[in-house]
Amino acid sequence: MSDLTRLDATLDQVWYHLACGAAEPDAPARNLVLATVGVDGGAEARMVVLRGADRGAGTLTVHTDAASAKVAEIAATPQATLLVWDPLARLQIRLRARVTSRAGTEEEWSAIGDGARAVYGGTPPPGFAIARPEAHEAAPDPARFTVLTARIEEIETLHLGQDRHRRAVFRRTEGFHGTWRAP
Amino acid sequence: MSDLTRLDATLDQVWYHLACGAAEPDAPARNLVLATVGVDGGAEARMVVLRGADRGAGTLTVHTDAASAKVAEIAATPQATLLVWDPLARLQIRLRARVTSRAGTEEEWSAIGDGARAVYGGTPPPGFAIARPEAHEAAPDPARFTVLTARIEEIETLHLGQDRHRRAVFRRTEGFHGTWRAP
Repeated sequence: MSDLTRLDATLDQVWYHLACGAAEPDAPARNLVLATVGVDGGAEARMVVLRGADRGAGTLTVHTDAASAKVAEIAATPQATLLVWDPLARLQIRLRARVTSRAGTEEEWSAIGDGARAVYGGTPPPGFAIARPEAHEAAPDPARFTVLTARIEEIETLHLGQDRHRRAVFRRTEGFHGTWRAP
Repeated sequence: MSDLTRLDATLDQVWYHLACGAAEPDAPARNLVLATVGVDGGAEARMVVLRGADRGAGTLTVHTDAASAKVAEIAATPQATLLVWDPLARLQIRLRARVTSRAGTEEEWSAIGDGARAVYGGTPPPGFAIARPEAHEAAPDPARFTVLTARIEEIETLHLGQDRHRRAVFRRTEGFHGTWRAP
């Protein structure tokens, strides 16, 4: 394979991973990291579930609770990173993105299962002190169901091959044409 | 188990995970996320390898290349998050930490294997554009071997149990005594 073909193949691999993650509960990219800047100025990170991946638009979709800290964090600093690590493929995918939030629609609320609905809502809100785990009451609340859209600005892959490590960067401003980087 | 006993058991589980991660290549906490604030003010994240875990001091150790972006990032903003996700235990561990870097010692350099040494050093430095992956030359360089020490300020666990989700927070300023939080 030529170097350009390898870059194209790498980008295809990224979107294959993301499409599988959005569709299949057991895919490596189903649970990915969302790193944000916290309100105190430090870095925060947590796992999120990938709900949608649109290669044409270069966007990813995640659902969350309006009362979760990450919603306030991205409102203050939209520049976030989503991270996928596939230990079998020894492939790391870093997605630098601008994240925005909006209320989920009735149609989106209807489309998620009853079990999933329980995590949007509840009293007290996420992170508040409670005396014991059972002191939290789940109460599905469509008004707190929030959709995050991550508009990918840059994709950086790092493949830890047996022979050598390979890093590539694909930027939206360059039409996602890739370039190789020192690993 | 009483609620306090469950909190103690949760903290024990965290340190069990971290100790295994530092010692065993196949442990869930061997590869963990390091999230930092980038020099442009957005959030960055990448996988790192856990090299040490000291419960007494409440610190973790990671090795890196002095020329990697994360070294500059933590110099500017030491408040970082380390994240472990164990899909089998359905346990997320968030470690808010102050990270500092120092040159690795000769003793530490001797203790790592030949294969590991190759990733500290090389031309050009990490992230620089290269024409093709083979254009990067590895060259183990003890002068670029860097040790990151993460002093944990807060541990936050989230267990996605079948019956309910349980979140707990353990703060250094409170002697790492835990409190329950809304999930």
